[in-house]
Amino acid sequence: MSDSRVINFGAGPSVLPDSVLQEAAKGLLNFNGTGIGIAEISHRSKEFVAFLAELEGQVRSQLEVPETHSILFTQGGATGQFSAIVLNLLARHRLLHPDLSNDERAMDYVVTGSWSKKAAEEARRLGGGQVNVAVDARPYSKDGKSFDNIPAHDTYTFSPNPALIYYCENETVDGVEFSNDASSPASFPFHLLPQNTLAPLVADYSSSFMSRPIPRLADHAIIYAGAQKNIGPAGLTILIVRKDCIVDVDAAAKLGAMPVPITMVYKTLADNNSLYNTPSVLAIYISGLVLKRSAELGGLKYYEEVNKRKAEKVYAAIKEGAEKGVYQAKVKEGSGSLMNVVFNVLGEGAEAKFLSGAEARGMQALKGHRSVGGIRASLYNAITEQQVDMLVAYMKEFLEQ
Amino acid sequence: MSDSRVINFGAGPSVLPDSVLQEAAKGLLNFNGTGIGIAEISHRSKEFVAFLAELEGQVRSQLEVPETHSILFTQGGATGQFSAIVLNLLARHRLLHPDLSNDERAMDYVVTGSWSKKAAEEARRLGGGQVNVAVDARPYSKDGKSFDNIPAHDTYTFSPNPALIYYCENETVDGVEFSNDASSPASFPFHLLPQNTLAPLVADYSSSFMSRPIPRLADHAIIYAGAQKNIGPAGLTILIVRKDCIVDVDAAAKLGAMPVPITMVYKTLADNNSLYNTPSVLAIYISGLVLKRSAELGGLKYYEEVNKRKAEKVYAAIKEGAEKGVYQAKVKEGSGSLMNVVFNVLGEGAEAKFLSGAEARGMQALKGHRSVGGIRASLYNAITEQQVDMLVAYMKEFLEQ
Repeated sequence: MSDSRVINFGAGPSVLPDSVLQEAAKGLLNFNGTGIGIAEISHRSKEFVAFLAELEGQVRSQLEVPETHSILFTQGGATGQFSAIVLNLLARHRLLHPDLSNDERAMDYVVTGSWSKKAAEEARRLGGGQVNVAVDARPYSKDGKSFDNIPAHDTYTFSPNPALIYYCENETVDGVEFSNDASSPASFPFHLLPQNTLAPLVADYSSSFMSRPIPRLADHAIIYAGAQKNIGPAGLTILIVRKDCIVDVDAAAKLGAMPVPITMVYKTLADNNSLYNTPSVLAIYISGLVLKRSAELGGLKYYEEVNKRKAEKVYAAIKEGAEKGVYQAKVKEGSGSLMNVVFNVLGEGAEAKFLSGAEARGMQALKGHRSVGGIRASLYNAITEQQVDMLVAYMKEFLEQ
Repeated sequence: MSDSRVINFGAGPSVLPDSVLQEAAKGLLNFNGTGIGIAEISHRSKEFVAFLAELEGQVRSQLEVPETHSILFTQGGATGQFSAIVLNLLARHRLLHPDLSNDERAMDYVVTGSWSKKAAEEARRLGGGQVNVAVDARPYSKDGKSFDNIPAHDTYTFSPNPALIYYCENETVDGVEFSNDASSPASFPFHLLPQNTLAPLVADYSSSFMSRPIPRLADHAIIYAGAQKNIGPAGLTILIVRKDCIVDVDAAAKLGAMPVPITMVYKTLADNNSLYNTPSVLAIYISGLVLKRSAELGGLKYYEEVNKRKAEKVYAAIKEGAEKGVYQAKVKEGSGSLMNVVFNVLGEGAEAKFLSGAEARGMQALKGHRSVGGIRASLYNAITEQQVDMLVAYMKEFLEQ
């Protein structure tokens, strides 16, 4: 089977391990010997409930999630959470500070790329508070208008008592990512967060979740991720929520907060072990298989090392090509994503030639996001180092032509 | 493979056709010869976009959906739509009647079972209008407190100009369903709807969608269904929305309507061909395979006939058992669901004995919903007539014991 499979560098939905897909194919017809396929089994069956608990256990142990935080599963992807974080955290802020006006409820957004920009737009659209852009990375870019960098720490301005503080750990479209080395200027400035309060820090971790450990996880209020990058099929969203952010939104609504649709209420999810309504059973299953395999391979320490090596190889090839005037890095050094490596191929028609040469070698989905163009190689967990070596070999071969 | 499979009478997620699961198992590793598995392919790839269009075409042709209505795909199930219908239709009402107060915006709910009751509760919780219970079926039940009937037409009271009118076509938990024969007293009273306006009639069709044609489909504003009964895996929600109900919710919010989370905005879904954000690619795929197979078998006319015969056989066996004092019908005659047939097994320990005997014969998931107990046999499209015959044979055999 795997012989006929191409190498899929797509940004998501994206490649999954062959061995998991083969196991899932069996599970589709018969899940764990129940005689019922996984897509057909009741989400309230003891077999599925046990499987969901196992998935939760994998997330908790591999990421070392403390007991202060709940792990929740829902649908709707990161875009669904753009709204849910605002609604739940404005409700929390209302309960803590019922007498403030909406103008006094700040929502701080760190804008480092297309996704964080979209998240901020949704907060603005919903209203109920004021969006404060804590920093916008574009003025600090090479051309003054692109998302190509993680800004320096001294550029951030946080509000004293915001309802939420948002950042996107890895920008899938633009290929910039916060460093998880606290001494790097491209790390997230945790030390600048307001200290007088349990900070409502939210991180969109969609495209780097489970690719390496999360720095200062316990200092986050909410971490969320769509599954369709390192974990599984689209249709599953994983949330890690500090328990003080699981609030009674109806009580907050009585004090004037916006009402929250029931499927977006964290308390409803938490009170019902993520089974208030029917979850994405099949996506949960495949994600569970992926994380079980990940644990067997050595967990996030293993992936952190491999992923770092993989990305370094591609960045080195870009650098080599840049010296020869063939490639151009799109992201400032130090801000580059380990998951989504972006670059340009210079010269008339050169990009199309690069892509068709890659396809001829069985490497697909290297075209950059339609909004920014160029080349994007997504190097998620299921992309092997050997596959990256093939890409790098091709990148070098292309230089010779 | 199929030899090891049990007969799954579960209410949802529920049984899917063997042949579809076998094809899906292949698609997991290689979708339509792309060399990429269906769970791994970009939702913006031409192959997936074509597949989604095919699924839409299947829904449109099999249900004869007119061009006045859009077909949309989203996530979050029926529970997600409990909120979305309220938010979108209150926005529509606001745009049509900006000067009315919230007290003057009626939302009419027809309450015939657990799900319609829940839908009404969500409307009440969100606020923004007044919930009017057009009819509650419980006072018309045998014991005065159960959902066991579709009430007679003269019991309904609709508001003159409501923001929405809601009913649930088939109540999965309680086993009552509207008749699709207009001359039946258990049909929906379309003739009583307010005539002065394009009625905002909403139907939750989750557990009967694609099991038979939808009567007066064109007279509905919104029809929605979670996929996990007759169509596919959980994680996909299908909507049929009349185009006047696809409104600019942000313009309505400026006039005082509630803000709508972006993933719940029908206009966002419609403007982006249901690809505003990443959809449940895998659930869409399996649903597409199921509907293609359904068309090959003869479409909804075929299923209507078979499903009617299947249900009649089970109801006849219940009647026979009732005469012998062993079974007890839970639903009044004429109001019984074709999809979820519910009954009691009378006598101390008899229900457990019935269930264990069924399991011994390879028939599973016959236990009624935890809130109402008893037996529930769900007879969705993928349950064959032969499998129903086995159930009926066992029901008769049980009478002899």
